[in-house]
Amino acid sequence: MSSSAFPDPAANLPPRIESDSMGSLDIPANCLYGCQTQRSLMNFPIGGIESKMPLEVVYAMALVKKCCAEYHAEIGVMDTSVATAIAQAADEVMAGYHDRHFPLVTFQTGSGTQTNMNVNEVLSNRAIQILGGEVGSKSPVHPNDHVNKGQSSNDSFPTAMHIALTKMITEITLPGLQKLQQGLVEKSADFKDIVKIGRTHCQDATPLTLGQEFSGYAQQVEYGIERLQKSLPSICRLALGGTAVGTGLNTSKGYDVAIADRLAKASKLPFVTAPNKFEALAAHDSLVEISGVLNTIACSLNKIANDLRLLASGPRCGLGELSLPENEPGSSIMPGKVNPTQCEAMTMVCAQVMGNHVAVTVGGAQGHFELNVFKPLMVANLLQSARLIGDASKSFTENCVSGLTVNTARVEELMNASLMLVTALNPHIGYDKASEIAKKAHKAGTTLKEAAVASGYLTAEQFDQWIVPSEMIGPK
Amino acid sequence: MSSSAFPDPAANLPPRIESDSMGSLDIPANCLYGCQTQRSLMNFPIGGIESKMPLEVVYAMALVKKCCAEYHAEIGVMDTSVATAIAQAADEVMAGYHDRHFPLVTFQTGSGTQTNMNVNEVLSNRAIQILGGEVGSKSPVHPNDHVNKGQSSNDSFPTAMHIALTKMITEITLPGLQKLQQGLVEKSADFKDIVKIGRTHCQDATPLTLGQEFSGYAQQVEYGIERLQKSLPSICRLALGGTAVGTGLNTSKGYDVAIADRLAKASKLPFVTAPNKFEALAAHDSLVEISGVLNTIACSLNKIANDLRLLASGPRCGLGELSLPENEPGSSIMPGKVNPTQCEAMTMVCAQVMGNHVAVTVGGAQGHFELNVFKPLMVANLLQSARLIGDASKSFTENCVSGLTVNTARVEELMNASLMLVTALNPHIGYDKASEIAKKAHKAGTTLKEAAVASGYLTAEQFDQWIVPSEMIGPK
Amino acid sequence: MSSSAFPDPAANLPPRIESDSMGSLDIPANCLYGCQTQRSLMNFPIGGIESKMPLEVVYAMALVKKCCAEYHAEIGVMDTSVATAIAQAADEVMAGYHDRHFPLVTFQTGSGTQTNMNVNEVLSNRAIQILGGEVGSKSPVHPNDHVNKGQSSNDSFPTAMHIALTKMITEITLPGLQKLQQGLVEKSADFKDIVKIGRTHCQDATPLTLGQEFSGYAQQVEYGIERLQKSLPSICRLALGGTAVGTGLNTSKGYDVAIADRLAKASKLPFVTAPNKFEALAAHDSLVEISGVLNTIACSLNKIANDLRLLASGPRCGLGELSLPENEPGSSIMPGKVNPTQCEAMTMVCAQVMGNHVAVTVGGAQGHFELNVFKPLMVANLLQSARLIGDASKSFTENCVSGLTVNTARVEELMNASLMLVTALNPHIGYDKASEIAKKAHKAGTTLKEAAVASGYLTAEQFDQWIVPSEMIGPK
Amino acid sequence: MSSSAFPDPAANLPPRIESDSMGSLDIPANCLYGCQTQRSLMNFPIGGIESKMPLEVVYAMALVKKCCAEYHAEIGVMDTSVATAIAQAADEVMAGYHDRHFPLVTFQTGSGTQTNMNVNEVLSNRAIQILGGEVGSKSPVHPNDHVNKGQSSNDSFPTAMHIALTKMITEITLPGLQKLQQGLVEKSADFKDIVKIGRTHCQDATPLTLGQEFSGYAQQVEYGIERLQKSLPSICRLALGGTAVGTGLNTSKGYDVAIADRLAKASKLPFVTAPNKFEALAAHDSLVEISGVLNTIACSLNKIANDLRLLASGPRCGLGELSLPENEPGSSIMPGKVNPTQCEAMTMVCAQVMGNHVAVTVGGAQGHFELNVFKPLMVANLLQSARLIGDASKSFTENCVSGLTVNTARVEELMNASLMLVTALNPHIGYDKASEIAKKAHKAGTTLKEAAVASGYLTAEQFDQWIVPSEMIGPK
Repeated sequence: MSSSAFPDPAANLPPRIESDSMGSLDIPANCLYGCQTQRSLMNFPIGGIESKMPLEVVYAMALVKKCCAEYHAEIGVMDTSVATAIAQAADEVMAGYHDRHFPLVTFQTGSGTQTNMNVNEVLSNRAIQILGGEVGSKSPVHPNDHVNKGQSSNDSFPTAMHIALTKMITEITLPGLQKLQQGLVEKSADFKDIVKIGRTHCQDATPLTLGQEFSGYAQQVEYGIERLQKSLPSICRLALGGTAVGTGLNTSKGYDVAIADRLAKASKLPFVTAPNKFEALAAHDSLVEISGVLNTIACSLNKIANDLRLLASGPRCGLGELSLPENEPGSSIMPGKVNPTQCEAMTMVCAQVMGNHVAVTVGGAQGHFELNVFKPLMVANLLQSARLIGDASKSFTENCVSGLTVNTARVEELMNASLMLVTALNPHIGYDKASEIAKKAHKAGTTLKEAAVASGYLTAEQFDQWIVPSEMIGPK
Repeated sequence: MSSSAFPDPAANLPPRIESDSMGSLDIPANCLYGCQTQRSLMNFPIGGIESKMPLEVVYAMALVKKCCAEYHAEIGVMDTSVATAIAQAADEVMAGYHDRHFPLVTFQTGSGTQTNMNVNEVLSNRAIQILGGEVGSKSPVHPNDHVNKGQSSNDSFPTAMHIALTKMITEITLPGLQKLQQGLVEKSADFKDIVKIGRTHCQDATPLTLGQEFSGYAQQVEYGIERLQKSLPSICRLALGGTAVGTGLNTSKGYDVAIADRLAKASKLPFVTAPNKFEALAAHDSLVEISGVLNTIACSLNKIANDLRLLASGPRCGLGELSLPENEPGSSIMPGKVNPTQCEAMTMVCAQVMGNHVAVTVGGAQGHFELNVFKPLMVANLLQSARLIGDASKSFTENCVSGLTVNTARVEELMNASLMLVTALNPHIGYDKASEIAKKAHKAGTTLKEAAVASGYLTAEQFDQWIVPSEMIGPK
Repeated sequence: MSSSAFPDPAANLPPRIESDSMGSLDIPANCLYGCQTQRSLMNFPIGGIESKMPLEVVYAMALVKKCCAEYHAEIGVMDTSVATAIAQAADEVMAGYHDRHFPLVTFQTGSGTQTNMNVNEVLSNRAIQILGGEVGSKSPVHPNDHVNKGQSSNDSFPTAMHIALTKMITEITLPGLQKLQQGLVEKSADFKDIVKIGRTHCQDATPLTLGQEFSGYAQQVEYGIERLQKSLPSICRLALGGTAVGTGLNTSKGYDVAIADRLAKASKLPFVTAPNKFEALAAHDSLVEISGVLNTIACSLNKIANDLRLLASGPRCGLGELSLPENEPGSSIMPGKVNPTQCEAMTMVCAQVMGNHVAVTVGGAQGHFELNVFKPLMVANLLQSARLIGDASKSFTENCVSGLTVNTARVEELMNASLMLVTALNPHIGYDKASEIAKKAHKAGTTLKEAAVASGYLTAEQFDQWIVPSEMIGPK
Repeated sequence: MSSSAFPDPAANLPPRIESDSMGSLDIPANCLYGCQTQRSLMNFPIGGIESKMPLEVVYAMALVKKCCAEYHAEIGVMDTSVATAIAQAADEVMAGYHDRHFPLVTFQTGSGTQTNMNVNEVLSNRAIQILGGEVGSKSPVHPNDHVNKGQSSNDSFPTAMHIALTKMITEITLPGLQKLQQGLVEKSADFKDIVKIGRTHCQDATPLTLGQEFSGYAQQVEYGIERLQKSLPSICRLALGGTAVGTGLNTSKGYDVAIADRLAKASKLPFVTAPNKFEALAAHDSLVEISGVLNTIACSLNKIANDLRLLASGPRCGLGELSLPENEPGSSIMPGKVNPTQCEAMTMVCAQVMGNHVAVTVGGAQGHFELNVFKPLMVANLLQSARLIGDASKSFTENCVSGLTVNTARVEELMNASLMLVTALNPHIGYDKASEIAKKAHKAGTTLKEAAVASGYLTAEQFDQWIVPSEMIGPK
């Protein structure tokens, strides 16, 4: 729907004609892709720009192509010049120079074949350019015979899925969560001496420190990081070498291990070849697993963001224990109001991740025989979830958690008003009498101390001695 | 895991031997079911008592059998004595006299065939008893040739699903929601003059009446009722007459209409025959649709219950605008505390309904060819959702909504403390100045009036004239 | 991550400085947005380009602004010149001329306030340009005092959500489904005389015509269309006039009705004002409802696409009853193979819609008090779902359904091989004997006729007379 | 709805009267529970028998009570006679003798307080009986002061949740999965020499052995087992010692560790005390995590069951490569038909687990402050999921996988008919010519060999030499 603001000078050149096994097609002159990409554009006008295949997958495919070409050159089955040109073209793609030549959407072949061919076509045409040949000629670099050599969509695409996702989690998700965890730990330390009322069932409960409360949040995020790290090995297993159905037909023994090694070295990530390629092509349980971890983290973050917006509710008519940093003017009609917008962005991210998880689950459950054909859907949803959690955690830390301040006076006011300190009387006068005192204070609207003394069960001195909030925040 | 406390006097009788097309089996002497039920018990030890096929489905199957038998007697293809005995046996089943003879679980054949045969076997054996024959002899009432006459599991089971669910919605869900809607409307009327602070983004906003707030809740529930009523016709279309694959093979023209009429009359519910039986057997989109409606209602109820627990949070350290009725002692360690337990039960119900909806969706999406084989799963989840919403709405109304009281003093205290009444100054002094005043009061901790007067933008008299909460609750 | 290929000539101009209630900020010279948009860009770097607020929402917001400005001019509270300039600016936005000035993401304030302000800023600056003023001066057209007049984010954003979604469903979803329904009806007619084997439990069953099978699919889609139409009135209720908390503070009586009328006329869609504005701001059950309908349709489409890919499985080793049109070369390693890519795109769309539905549900369930703050999330997911279903239905019809052909020989071969025609013997020789014959043929690998005659229960002539597949496709 | 068949001899005794802090109530004479249980029965008539709190939770609560009593006796703060009586009562409960005294439903207080009190009441009354006292007298064993000593619902209930779930997973889920994995490994070995056609996109692909195909299934289940084992430590962390808000108020230092040790010894499961009790009470991310693992396993099992039912489809008109064991008569109208009922039960189980996972996720995301109040919902759904997967895996193995047989002739017939063996020609004649041959054979309906020889690209001898399916099942 959107159009670029600036004209493309090559837009008026006549198209070139390319052909594949199904016939010939016009290809825009300034595009590096070929027939199969063009066919996909024509056959899958689904979802528009919002549904484009994530570039992270394209970049990971380029890395696969580069490693395969270099491997084949090394073992002597591909001209070094061809391999070098493919590798250079792949580097350019990974650097983002050719993004506009990858126009396909997620809702295409369920194996990602069309994106595989898109990458094959662009890399072969770009390598042809590098080698001084004619774009579209398939010579001296053929999209199938060279760029796709030793691969099938069925093993290269899931390999790229795992690479792209591992990179995203390593570079965006985990750093974001680590920053958040650190931010929460810092706040927990800052707040360690602030005794406040606890709340269970949203009702007043026994006291704890604000630091303890935040230690719970920090612990949630720390576990989330551990959960991700514990599941990363599942997606570090690569399918490459399985070729079409998992048998590795048309490859040599050891090829799978060698390629996984190259990919690990090139990416500096701990990839290994999947021990069972049939599983690696036909099922994507590993993706469902890691989606489940992201879903768990979403639950943690939703809880934390929700608590913070309620603890900071007000300024005058809410709980008001915390103040959020003012990042922007709030309502367009109500001046002076500053809203928990970072909490809102975060909880929307959480809802999105929960939804994406169901999409991934539904796709993961429905594979048939030797190939799961929900691959683009699964990777697109997972990349979004992983990125959203990373981005939102970083933003939430910087723009919310780190700027939180305590309204000390309000915290104390609430704690002193509370009836629940009565719990401290249980060991002294028993459950039933303590209950009686609390109920009386509640009905009469008096303080707990007034009701306690009036009850005759204890003296004012005993009250002060027995009820000391700062001594109620841990075991004896 | 649980065992009955009292011995069954027939437990020691020797089993009788029954046979079907696969051979013979021992059947407990005091059981009315036969071989196929027994085989299912042996083959599907899955999920235990919590996973039993809902009795509502069994009762609806019995109604189908009764109507078919009577129809066949009327058109002269079944002995009246046989039909009468089947009808009597079905009546007994529907009255709950034979519940223990339906021991099968939901996780069986996806067509519900085994429950169909369970019903066929029990009705034939009970009809044989009524006619003085020998249980297990299949004579004079044969489970297939008589009780199942004119039906296949493939059309009778979905017919029973629709009947059971329509009854549940009509008898439990809708009355529960209507009671809740009425309860909310009453509270809305009671609270119509209580002006309170509004909250957007969980932050103080312009005022409204508590009655208006409750009118929103009432509206949500009213729409929920309308949504259900709007979708009921979808499940009032019955599959019976489609037989095995939807063609109606082995039936006569008009049979489907005649049977739907009988079922409508017998149940006093507006059932009609499905216009396309292929759709009615192969897909259960109507169930997914109505599950989507229950899911929508769950969102409504979650919102309402969540608001109420926050508005009633306290007693001293929360919002405290409302008081919940005290239905039970709260925490076992904290005396005097009364918790929003009805809200908690309700929000757990909502989460369950949302989960069940996904189970129904996953089942509904996966049919193959002429038969969806997630039937027992779908109906069991839907019956639970429909019942939970009905039961919980009733309980929530009686034990929570109807007993709600307002803490008038607290409501007024909060409203007067609010800064957001400043919005009323916008038309008089403009957005920017109003914003400035609110910010000053916020930082200085003063009232809005103090800050307004200090600003010089208006006088105290103007403040009192311009800021009148009760005039801020509607358009001019 | 992607960068535009062509340089923006204004990129090197010095930024202008704008200010809002929080201070001043640099704004890129060539951008029409202002401070609050810039702050949002800085505060919400979440999700990148894939997470941009859908332009459909921006266009709908622009329509709201236009109608409000014109209304205020008409009743004499806004200069006609200002209103006209706002209306012209809004028209330009709706025509797509200013897309790049709307850079915000979905994961922002949960009320959509920042997108509201983005629209206010762009429209005011563009209107200022039109009137010859200085961009950024807020004069003579102020983003809040003029463009946002008579609105709050809290009522204008949900109004835009409903408008955008109603348009999408009307213009994309319903036409796509209608095309699919028509395509299926046509195939059903084409295939009406092709008798084929039915399959229940994925096992051979009694015959039906291929036309009947397709009539079931057509019926599913027809019901889906009806479901959408039945739910459209829910989202045709507009929130505008509720302003901040639903009370309509700062508006005049009748304003809500008048604006809804204008929006209905301008859009030619049957919008009305929501009868209860508290519900319309605080809850988005109507969005959850319609998401539930899209989820139901996803189940239908998943079933159909899944059936078609299995019926067309092969070419030699599958069911092979249908042939799919060849739209593109299939595997990159296996020549000659053509895959059910449209079915795969469709089933991925269905999984996405189911996932989006959960995101919408989770967001819809969690509103607090007077405002649900999952608005951008909800509308973004719904717009995607609605568009995907429409786009995919169209593509699926054109590129798959319409080009389906029957392999008549294969259909006949399978039907004649089937044992399940034995069902036709039930009325003649009874269930038990018919079963015996079928089992014998199965074990011996003979045809049914051979086994039937060998059984002695019937003659070859009786067999031919009793078993006529084309007579087994309906009631007598 | 169902009533017991045999009368309870105590049913006619007059009720006894018990009281709690809210007043007195009639309790049925033959019931061991007290006031608070009775109040819950009255206040939460939600969901009926299908929604009962799982007995596994009750048993785990009893274990907690036993260990606490014994600990308190050991450290000298509880009479040994009281502790011994509580322990004996707890043992009786765990042995299932008192099941009927635990009538509460899941949809109660979200902290499980009412079930905690139910257990407290039953154990105190039963301990009183053991000690010769009067039931209902609260002496010499008080439900709060003795049975609940050192606990709050807020820490004891989540402790019981973790214990019950760990036991279920250890005793039911993992053994079921291990049996299935073993069954699949055995079949994989049995089938190692059967070369068959592979299928990708549901279309014919290159060959593999049936053993390889099953090795993929076995690998999926093996990973599932590993996933569960990897997540078990998360739920082996126990909350006990946190008391009301996580501080451990009213306990002594070391209490939490000591109690976790006792629970570990008593259950022979590796329980430890949770390092952060605030997290352990306020969030149940560990339950969401393990639910995510069960959801992943559901995807695996759905894929396997779905593949098997399609590979066994037929008997005459499907793929027919496998034969399922005949466990029961199939359709009630179609004699001789045997259906994949175990696959259907399994896929329904998978859908249920996916649905339960969403319920657990929604509950896990919504905790407030110091206490998540979706505890009963979460544990009930998880126990069902864990049990269903274990039960169904066992049943599926015994009644389906282990009895699978191969239709060797059919497998060979399909493989020889396939065109996809053409892939083996790629290295010899190149992709384009191989593709040409396959297409010719496809169009002409000839064998691949005929088309290959006719093409002139290779001789019949070369064909036989180059295309050897059994050499196409691995790398060179």
